This record gives sequence, C-alpha cells and structure tokens, in this order.
Amino acid sequence: MDYQQMCPRYEKAIDVLGKKWTGLIIRILMGGKKRFGEFHAQMPDVSDRLLSERLKTLEDEGIIIRRVFDTKPVRVEYELTEKGRALEPVVTAIQAWGEHWCEPETVHSDR
Amino acid sequence: MDYQQMCPRYEKAIDVLGKKWTGLIIRILMGGKKRFGEFHAQMPDVSDRLLSERLKTLEDEGIIIRRVFDTKPVRVEYELTEKGRALEPVVTAIQAWGEHWCEPETVHSDR
Repeated sequence: MDYQQMCPRYEKAIDVLGKKWTGLIIRILMGGKKRFGEFHAQMPDVSDRLLSERLKTLEDEGIIIRRVFDTKPVRVEYELTEKGRALEPVVTAIQAWGEHWCEPETVHSDR
Repeated sequence: MDYQQMCPRYEKAIDVLGKKWTGLIIRILMGGKKRFGEFHAQMPDVSDRLLSERLKTLEDEGIIIRRVFDTKPVRVEYELTEKGRALEPVVTAIQAWGEHWCEPETVHSDR
C-alpha cells in the first residue's frame, strides 16, 4: 500500500461524494436514467439552481452523462456513466454505515 | 427508501470521513492498535498537532478509543471501536473507486 498515493485519490473521491445532495442524486440515478423534473419528486426541498449545479459538477467529473433530445418541449435526460455506476458500492457502503451508526439527532446538515 | 432520512445520515458519515487524513488514519488502524508515534511512520508529512486533532475528532465520534497506560514513559494507544471497524467496507470502497477512477493529475489536495 502506497500511503502517499492513497490520500490524494481518496480525497478526490470524497470531494466528489461529499457535496450535499450528491449521494442522493447518484442513488436516484442508480434506478435508471432520469429527467430533470423527475429528481424533484425525490428531493422536493432542493432548488432547481442547486440541482443544476450538482448535476453539472457530476457531469464535469464524468460521473453522469447529460443527453438532450430535440423534441418539443426539449427533453433532457441524465444517466450514470461507467465511472458513476462504479460508485454504487461506495454510496451503498456510506449509506449503510450512516444508517446503522449515525443518530439523526447528532446529524449536522449545514453543509 | 426514505430519501428525507437518508441525506442527514449520509452527510454525517461523509462529514466524518471527509476530513483530510481521516481515511488514512482509519486505514492504518485497520491493521491493529497503534501508538501515537507509529502513525508517523506511515504519514510523515502530518504534524503532531494535526494528527492529535484528527484522533480527538475520531475519538469524539466514537470511531476510535484512546487508552492511556500508566507506564514510564506513559504509553498511549489508539484502536478502532466497533463503529470504527464498521467503516472498513466504506473506506475500502472509496479507496478502490479513487484508485480506479481518479487520476493523480486531476487531484485536488487543498482540503
């Protein structure tokens, strides 16, 4: 194990996963591709602007792909890439640990 | 899946895991209990003060336990708790994803 190499890659992964709502977006996309509006059903408290920002970041990171269909109205779909699907065990492991070990009352959500 | 409940627990887990060096400390402790000085061999660039801070946070979170032995000189050992050992699949999954999918040259380590 090269610990010097380990840290930057671990930190990069955490950087991507650590932004608020990112885990949820990935989790929702694990159920298959989604249109922009479909996210809202599962995350009603998130503004369009913030959702757009997160989707853009995930697209820039190569975790999701955004497809625009030339229909009327224009249809925009989001889907996990191979890199994004590879996050499934990560998100699942974080979630499982959080559910088992983190009490809601000790939760900080100001991030 | 209760998505409203999911987020705070996921975020709490990410909060703990996301601080620089935390993943490495947990990883080192997966190899068994360690004395303070023993961490340095594997993370030579981290100051005593920062290492102490991280260990204290992990202790406060119930992830590690700190034991002081009344010897001369005093011996202090750190060990993962059950909650901490439960992080093994999480840290391993994050690390594996980072190694496979994150290029070192795109890494941001200013965190």
